[in-house]
Amino acid sequence: MLITLTTDFGLDDPFVAIMKGVILGRCPQASVVDICHTIPAQNIAAASHVLTEAAPYFPAATLHMAVVDPGVGTSRRIICIEASGQLFLAPDNGLLTPFFKDAHRAYELVNDEFFLQPVSSTFHGRDIFAPVAAALACGLAPNKLGPTLPISGLIHLEQPPATMGIHQLQGQCLRADHFGNMATNISKKELDSFLDAGETPLITIGATIIKGLSSTYGPEKGKIIALFNSSSYLEISIAGGNAVCELNLSIGSPVIINKSFGN
Amino acid sequence: MLITLTTDFGLDDPFVAIMKGVILGRCPQASVVDICHTIPAQNIAAASHVLTEAAPYFPAATLHMAVVDPGVGTSRRIICIEASGQLFLAPDNGLLTPFFKDAHRAYELVNDEFFLQPVSSTFHGRDIFAPVAAALACGLAPNKLGPTLPISGLIHLEQPPATMGIHQLQGQCLRADHFGNMATNISKKELDSFLDAGETPLITIGATIIKGLSSTYGPEKGKIIALFNSSSYLEISIAGGNAVCELNLSIGSPVIINKSFGN
Amino acid sequence: MLITLTTDFGLDDPFVAIMKGVILGRCPQASVVDICHTIPAQNIAAASHVLTEAAPYFPAATLHMAVVDPGVGTSRRIICIEASGQLFLAPDNGLLTPFFKDAHRAYELVNDEFFLQPVSSTFHGRDIFAPVAAALACGLAPNKLGPTLPISGLIHLEQPPATMGIHQLQGQCLRADHFGNMATNISKKELDSFLDAGETPLITIGATIIKGLSSTYGPEKGKIIALFNSSSYLEISIAGGNAVCELNLSIGSPVIINKSFGN
Repeated sequence: MLITLTTDFGLDDPFVAIMKGVILGRCPQASVVDICHTIPAQNIAAASHVLTEAAPYFPAATLHMAVVDPGVGTSRRIICIEASGQLFLAPDNGLLTPFFKDAHRAYELVNDEFFLQPVSSTFHGRDIFAPVAAALACGLAPNKLGPTLPISGLIHLEQPPATMGIHQLQGQCLRADHFGNMATNISKKELDSFLDAGETPLITIGATIIKGLSSTYGPEKGKIIALFNSSSYLEISIAGGNAVCELNLSIGSPVIINKSFGN
Repeated sequence: MLITLTTDFGLDDPFVAIMKGVILGRCPQASVVDICHTIPAQNIAAASHVLTEAAPYFPAATLHMAVVDPGVGTSRRIICIEASGQLFLAPDNGLLTPFFKDAHRAYELVNDEFFLQPVSSTFHGRDIFAPVAAALACGLAPNKLGPTLPISGLIHLEQPPATMGIHQLQGQCLRADHFGNMATNISKKELDSFLDAGETPLITIGATIIKGLSSTYGPEKGKIIALFNSSSYLEISIAGGNAVCELNLSIGSPVIINKSFGN
Repeated sequence: MLITLTTDFGLDDPFVAIMKGVILGRCPQASVVDICHTIPAQNIAAASHVLTEAAPYFPAATLHMAVVDPGVGTSRRIICIEASGQLFLAPDNGLLTPFFKDAHRAYELVNDEFFLQPVSSTFHGRDIFAPVAAALACGLAPNKLGPTLPISGLIHLEQPPATMGIHQLQGQCLRADHFGNMATNISKKELDSFLDAGETPLITIGATIIKGLSSTYGPEKGKIIALFNSSSYLEISIAGGNAVCELNLSIGSPVIINKSFGN
């Protein structure tokens, strides 16, 4: 069984390897794939984004384990949800919110027979998440982990939605990637429903106005463009450049779309 | 068989992948797990810490290969030790010191029939460590590697110990993690034996005095706390913050513990 | 089958994991090894260097997938070549040039039955490279991917050669590693053929003149040395130091070798 790992543990400490050691010691046939370990410390929303983008590309029955856990050792719960044919383990801190709409069951991890003993108060990734992931990968039914929880009772962490008027669609910058492309919270679906036939979007971000959409990062070096990224969200980009740095974009900056006509 | 890798090779060069290619070419059934490749260049003590924390969480018979090797190509020896049911390969430069107390055998790698030929003078990770690890993972008995060495004759790299008086326990800062927590060389065992019933530790580090211990990183954001980390060493931390940066802590800074009464 | 990955995707985004998810979903028995994901953005030459150094150490039949692809979504081709008993997938942008001399066949990836549908215009690593790699790893014959291309018709990206006169060998700085060693484009073979018996090279780089070659990074801390690196190219190094920083070396800086006599 595939187990993916998403954490804010960084790459300089032994923490990630320790979790792998625990998993492979208890379930040698598990395959462990790193999604990301450089989530900014304690940034639940960033972890949620990254996992949301990655999970759909993993096969059915993959177990995704996400440990961005500012509340480790406090009374916060740890949950396992089944959603879209995959399993997800994370603290009940909102990290898994995007998966709730497709989740049909959630369990609280309370059955400590699967935990590493003694359980520390500072490293549940090692003492709870990893051994539970190993048990699940080796065939344990999720309902053995603890009591069922109603999805509605889990902590939800909602992203700010784009707001659509008749003349204007307003969104914001959501996430920068390594190339300096800035993704917004405006989906292709929203932009398509905002525009009528023959209308071209006029995209305002800070002092920059971009007319129309590009389909690729393109060959015209240095041009500021807007396009749909590989997750079908509107993205601001500079061909061969770094839009985040060059345009000084920040997460949360407003992105405003008006309609224009012609090309 | 599991093989772990700990190096100072960084993530930007092909060196780590080259070692994996050599290992998997010679022992396709080996499973390779990265412990850390961002050990500061040539920092033997840091590699030793990271491996010491990680190794106990790997299953029996795991082979740990650690290449932080400022003496590569010189007359320094390369050793294989058996300790606590696992195997360790490293230069004889002190890196494996924490494992010596549980080691029952050490061998020097001299039998070059397992080496990649010709052996370069600059990349023994590729030419010696990796093919020897592959041979061991495929079942070679360690005593085929070369002559037995007495553990006492290996280079030892001792950490500064904490020193305990009747009224004061003195230690120092040992290692910072990615979250900015600073671990000290004071173990839970030492602090427990220093304090009598009803006594509370008064922890002085630079201009900061911390009274008592926390059990978690806790919910009180910004509070300077001391707690035992997941390896049971005293650690200085700021809830939701970065103690190393905010308190300007350095490796080697003294940590002094006095006794107080009440809470 | 082993699949290696070389990209400029960095470690902070889900892109690399997404490709692994696609590969492992379609070919669960594939083993994926990261070569490097921190190639500077869109630096085709750097990716080419790293892959050239690593590939020979992987076993026969390894599939190397390299996605440094400034032209993604444009009309640039994606190619698969067979060379030295291994397979290589990359954009036709010169990245694979060093392998062309040993290549006996090249194919263009046009048969979209192996692609992830719909194919985006911004993430061919996910939509084309990964599923094609999975298909090849599961046994697809490369000639099913699309039409054969003549090697001579592929885009070639040549490195500047060293130029040899009777009295002087001129080369340049080519690539810095994580330790601050600077590799040049002067090979051991070239330097050997330049020097006659009894001659010692006098190596000039900026204001520094190095007489003779060292065989190891050596024990004499702080000494500026020249030696052949593990790929048999001349390298400038400082024992226990960082030559790139301390000597202020840049890629492209000239390296001039004259002959001297005696030691």
